[in-house]
Amino acid sequence: MQPINVAVIGSGFMGAAHVDGLRRVPGVNVAAVSSIDRPRAEELCRNFAIPHLFDDWREILQRPEITAVHNCTPNNLHYEVNRALIEAGKHILSEKPLTLTSQESSDLVRLAREKGVLTAINFNYRGYPLIQHAHGMVSRGELGDLHLVQGHYLQDWLLHDTDYNWRLESGISGESRAIADIGSHWCDLIQFITGRKIERVFAHLYTIHNTRKKPRQEVETYKGKELGAPDQYDEVSIDTEDGGFVLLELSGGLRGSLTVSQVSAGRKNRQWFEIDGSRRAISWNQEEPNSLWIGHRDQPNEILIKDPSLMDANARTYAHYPGGHPEGYPDGPRNLFLNFYRAIRAGSENVPSPLGFPTFEDGHWEVKIVEAVLRSHREQAWVEVEA
Amino acid sequence: MQPINVAVIGSGFMGAAHVDGLRRVPGVNVAAVSSIDRPRAEELCRNFAIPHLFDDWREILQRPEITAVHNCTPNNLHYEVNRALIEAGKHILSEKPLTLTSQESSDLVRLAREKGVLTAINFNYRGYPLIQHAHGMVSRGELGDLHLVQGHYLQDWLLHDTDYNWRLESGISGESRAIADIGSHWCDLIQFITGRKIERVFAHLYTIHNTRKKPRQEVETYKGKELGAPDQYDEVSIDTEDGGFVLLELSGGLRGSLTVSQVSAGRKNRQWFEIDGSRRAISWNQEEPNSLWIGHRDQPNEILIKDPSLMDANARTYAHYPGGHPEGYPDGPRNLFLNFYRAIRAGSENVPSPLGFPTFEDGHWEVKIVEAVLRSHREQAWVEVEA
Amino acid sequence: MQPINVAVIGSGFMGAAHVDGLRRVPGVNVAAVSSIDRPRAEELCRNFAIPHLFDDWREILQRPEITAVHNCTPNNLHYEVNRALIEAGKHILSEKPLTLTSQESSDLVRLAREKGVLTAINFNYRGYPLIQHAHGMVSRGELGDLHLVQGHYLQDWLLHDTDYNWRLESGISGESRAIADIGSHWCDLIQFITGRKIERVFAHLYTIHNTRKKPRQEVETYKGKELGAPDQYDEVSIDTEDGGFVLLELSGGLRGSLTVSQVSAGRKNRQWFEIDGSRRAISWNQEEPNSLWIGHRDQPNEILIKDPSLMDANARTYAHYPGGHPEGYPDGPRNLFLNFYRAIRAGSENVPSPLGFPTFEDGHWEVKIVEAVLRSHREQAWVEVEA
Amino acid sequence: MQPINVAVIGSGFMGAAHVDGLRRVPGVNVAAVSSIDRPRAEELCRNFAIPHLFDDWREILQRPEITAVHNCTPNNLHYEVNRALIEAGKHILSEKPLTLTSQESSDLVRLAREKGVLTAINFNYRGYPLIQHAHGMVSRGELGDLHLVQGHYLQDWLLHDTDYNWRLESGISGESRAIADIGSHWCDLIQFITGRKIERVFAHLYTIHNTRKKPRQEVETYKGKELGAPDQYDEVSIDTEDGGFVLLELSGGLRGSLTVSQVSAGRKNRQWFEIDGSRRAISWNQEEPNSLWIGHRDQPNEILIKDPSLMDANARTYAHYPGGHPEGYPDGPRNLFLNFYRAIRAGSENVPSPLGFPTFEDGHWEVKIVEAVLRSHREQAWVEVEA
Repeated sequence: MQPINVAVIGSGFMGAAHVDGLRRVPGVNVAAVSSIDRPRAEELCRNFAIPHLFDDWREILQRPEITAVHNCTPNNLHYEVNRALIEAGKHILSEKPLTLTSQESSDLVRLAREKGVLTAINFNYRGYPLIQHAHGMVSRGELGDLHLVQGHYLQDWLLHDTDYNWRLESGISGESRAIADIGSHWCDLIQFITGRKIERVFAHLYTIHNTRKKPRQEVETYKGKELGAPDQYDEVSIDTEDGGFVLLELSGGLRGSLTVSQVSAGRKNRQWFEIDGSRRAISWNQEEPNSLWIGHRDQPNEILIKDPSLMDANARTYAHYPGGHPEGYPDGPRNLFLNFYRAIRAGSENVPSPLGFPTFEDGHWEVKIVEAVLRSHREQAWVEVEA
Repeated sequence: MQPINVAVIGSGFMGAAHVDGLRRVPGVNVAAVSSIDRPRAEELCRNFAIPHLFDDWREILQRPEITAVHNCTPNNLHYEVNRALIEAGKHILSEKPLTLTSQESSDLVRLAREKGVLTAINFNYRGYPLIQHAHGMVSRGELGDLHLVQGHYLQDWLLHDTDYNWRLESGISGESRAIADIGSHWCDLIQFITGRKIERVFAHLYTIHNTRKKPRQEVETYKGKELGAPDQYDEVSIDTEDGGFVLLELSGGLRGSLTVSQVSAGRKNRQWFEIDGSRRAISWNQEEPNSLWIGHRDQPNEILIKDPSLMDANARTYAHYPGGHPEGYPDGPRNLFLNFYRAIRAGSENVPSPLGFPTFEDGHWEVKIVEAVLRSHREQAWVEVEA
Repeated sequence: MQPINVAVIGSGFMGAAHVDGLRRVPGVNVAAVSSIDRPRAEELCRNFAIPHLFDDWREILQRPEITAVHNCTPNNLHYEVNRALIEAGKHILSEKPLTLTSQESSDLVRLAREKGVLTAINFNYRGYPLIQHAHGMVSRGELGDLHLVQGHYLQDWLLHDTDYNWRLESGISGESRAIADIGSHWCDLIQFITGRKIERVFAHLYTIHNTRKKPRQEVETYKGKELGAPDQYDEVSIDTEDGGFVLLELSGGLRGSLTVSQVSAGRKNRQWFEIDGSRRAISWNQEEPNSLWIGHRDQPNEILIKDPSLMDANARTYAHYPGGHPEGYPDGPRNLFLNFYRAIRAGSENVPSPLGFPTFEDGHWEVKIVEAVLRSHREQAWVEVEA
Repeated sequence: MQPINVAVIGSGFMGAAHVDGLRRVPGVNVAAVSSIDRPRAEELCRNFAIPHLFDDWREILQRPEITAVHNCTPNNLHYEVNRALIEAGKHILSEKPLTLTSQESSDLVRLAREKGVLTAINFNYRGYPLIQHAHGMVSRGELGDLHLVQGHYLQDWLLHDTDYNWRLESGISGESRAIADIGSHWCDLIQFITGRKIERVFAHLYTIHNTRKKPRQEVETYKGKELGAPDQYDEVSIDTEDGGFVLLELSGGLRGSLTVSQVSAGRKNRQWFEIDGSRRAISWNQEEPNSLWIGHRDQPNEILIKDPSLMDANARTYAHYPGGHPEGYPDGPRNLFLNFYRAIRAGSENVPSPLGFPTFEDGHWEVKIVEAVLRSHREQAWVEVEA
């Protein structure tokens, strides 16, 4: 088995996390890193014996030995980079959001299909074993008819007006922040688990801090909390939302509600959902990902622990340790990467089913949802997510 | 100290619960029960040495020695009974909803004021010690500026289409079911704790079972689950909601979201809220009422146990046992009753502050909220709760 | 149905709690209170229309209309009061410990049998619905063969050396404190649920504070925390344990371990146990008494909520509210009282089975266990609990 | 920076886990695997581009380019392999138990010191960030004087008599099973966190299944549950314990209690402890490793989430993701490896402090504790752990 040569574009929080995950995937060789932050990229290459470092990601396009590329650039570069990679015939695993507009994302989907490259988007929370098992439960009908979905995605790393990060800047991050950054994960999970598409939304967004204190030094995502309030800053105005409420209608008439916030003290990364059906309900919280609550009307409720011997055959492939040995955040993307490279290896004639990772089509739909949310907020009316 | 003579109208689930609570209130004598269900009423009188049993609640109006009356009739009688009691000069503690229309509830508020009777409405969950403490935290500014509120009220006792109860019949129970029955409790708690009024709503209601199997024998509230599906039934159509999603705007621009369901498997009576502020957040779940989650951004989160030595002076009066000695559902209304009779005893010149119980004005506002929710659902637009 | 006239001896924390519970029991009339604290007793009588107040409990012996008596005196009076009551032919519900020595407790058991009075001892935690259900599960064999039991009973109200209460004085409270006061509850629960007797113990006790600061004013049980450290005090030496570790052997070779502490910060009244069997395990924590964890090896674990529709027929009679309506500490003794008076009413010819409350025989065995624990600690060897 | 070449001996559950961890450590190159299971070893080498595969681990001794070795052999080989590696001048990270007897382990400690090689033993749970933080809390005096420790380590993978694995065979695994396999982890954590040594023990062990059904095919650790009961088996007698109760005395007079079981239905890998001090208590459960309970007497309890911004400087280096991004079982050993290779790189002149991993001295003490436990069980008396 020849290892597949992979390049990672970006060496920030996400770039390093991708390298970490890739190191754990069988048959993969991290052959190159590209980054505008040379010192961090050099450290990454040194630490993990990565042979090539490119200052300009375009150099990757010229390297035929590189089969697949992870796009960990800032949001505003996603389209350009993804497009160029497709055109160069590379398989791509892109960070989300896929692009800043649905016109762009639609473009990528079409182009990738034409070029026959495999695409993946890092909705990493799908990689948790119990998320896979939840998906299996719904598709086997164990929940019965679905009655409603609900949940929230809450964080506190942007609580204070002294919290700052490039994700606050719409020019880099896009027109939507809380919904696009974290709400999109929740939407993806719900759609994946239920097998339904979000088709209509009613949204009410809010911004707590209309101005924030931008430190004169750059701050990595999530790192501001450790650094504390900056000494030197510029007061800048903020045009993206700190959170929002979204009412949903999914295909088949399923209805739901989502609350998103990046200003909820004490909630670090609480992504929670509940899906209620006629036979059972399920509830899951990302901060304690190794247990799944299963609600019953006529018998005791259940707590399913992530335990290979208790999960279905598909979910079991996402669990690398026995029950009671918690698997965490870094193990999720690793699983998606594993499946992505398995699919690449299988080749277009033997596409595995299920694929085991979200694709650019999923990424495209998310961009459409975010656009619908923004429009609904402006119009204060229900808005269709147009196919 | 002469005991205050009290009558209870109704001997169902709620009537018996009121007698239970009243037996624990100092200085109160349950002097009469009125009920259309003579056998149950007789049993209640026998069990607790209640001297008078009236088949017709109007007989209470003629009894000058009865100072206060608990109205535990079905919803469609609330107005008539409450009105007659006010006119007879009785202090009233009424079950909720106060009336079926806001015209009626407004009428009662005005009349009670004219007659100078004390009124209370049984939003019993205010009686939990930690709810009082939460109210205190907000009013002392411990949460800082309020960012958002969210929560749900979920039950499963109406999950199956074989579940039946008079509360399903709009003729008896009113035009709204899930929102008026349980959503109203949540709205009351949020308004009480935050000190803000719900002023605008956007609602999306749903009905899972458009028809249900009505058993040919009557079923007490919550009791159907124990009896199982009925053998003999009539298929009847249902015109009240099984649940709904409500977006909220409270005074001062505070926004929120509520999910209500009576068809969520495994959720027995899960009334949960989270209130997020600039300094702290709090979260509470009625199914585990003896602990309050307090969220922090820059220090560990806290779990406050219902412990008199850890709560504020007002909340402490709601706790009758030390920390670690859980107090439950029946202890909440008992506390409200206690405060109601304390206020009666104090007399109109010495009204205690805070009163320690919700009044008909609170009940009236809830009726207005429910009406706004129903209208918003019909119009799919934001609707003002008109003062 | 004539109500049964009951007297309560003692008006402290426990005396008032008994009155509260008795007010909720059908067919019972609290006819008298006896207390050495006249102001508190007067308040109790006034609040609940109790007609008689005796300064000397012996007056009760002369009152033929009083059928049953609750003995809520300090531990060192238990024997004398219980003995006199039996001799006067009163049915007795006594606070625990039954007596300070097993010679005394054995005496009471014998005497009560001779006199044909009904006896009960307030191991109140048996009154929780899920404890009854757990007992049913074991007796129906749902746990299979029992492998081990374990647990703890932890409090923090005696953490500081400034915490003081009469329970610290061996002259009043007995030679053992933590084990006799709280460990005994745990032992009773385990014996009740498993249907096995504790037959051998190995104990290791410890005292953190060999001296404490006794305030010059009396402090009610659990109340010191609210008052804070006293200004004026005497340094007194302490000869009872703050906690201990006890290894257990129960009948049938079942083994176990118990940890007891009154000096565990943050644990208010945490009585927790786990019982592991060949088919299932169960775990329960008194601070969250409305859910029972059920452990499985080959299927998901379960959380049984206190819900009449999900519990067995016997346990259901201990639950007065539907699932999700938490019942708490005060509801437990109320249930035992209910069963005690049901048994009195049934008369000796129709003794209900199960009785539904612990008797003096249970109390006697607990005294024997405590004696064995103390001896084991002294000898640092296994000690038999002699029948 | 030249990468350090590392060999891993063993390719079972643990061998593969070590490779996974090593792949994530900066500056490390997995250069060789040695295994008697060639197919699994070949797969491992192929998957992760490991250049060398040795059938005989002794070949590693001849390879000067291999600087460090991970010993993942079965317990009965630990001594021989560790000894040979030391003599060959390799730095060693050994699986636990260090050896089967304390004579052997003492030998290794002495020899390693003589040879100047760095040693580590994989008490992997020390690698959790919150364990490090707990250690910091105690050493900074935040808990005050320590009152008691307690806890358990419970599993269910050996519940049935059809569960089988080499760890059941004393010839391979050693005279103690449950205590040596899992109890030792708990003892290590407690000693590490409190900074105290276990000096005396009183133990009571038990074996539920005196015979087990050994399948005629080999079963990997923890894997039997997935496979179900075997068709073909031999009834074999078992001479190691399924669990035990251990009372402890640590240095400074600190006392404690531990319960160990591999036959507790529903408990997958529940390693729980509580440490109670005069100022605070802490409690932690390995199945939910990202939160630490902090108990207080006079203020609300706290829940510290694994969040770099809330932990001390040392603990922060064990956390690779922000708060709310759970880190799990595989991230613990990775941290120890990281520190081990950091120490190797630093060289003997610049030994980091703290080292950040347990050494053979810790492993040696554990062997002594296990021996004392076994002797105490035989003698049913307190036994000193002799230095």
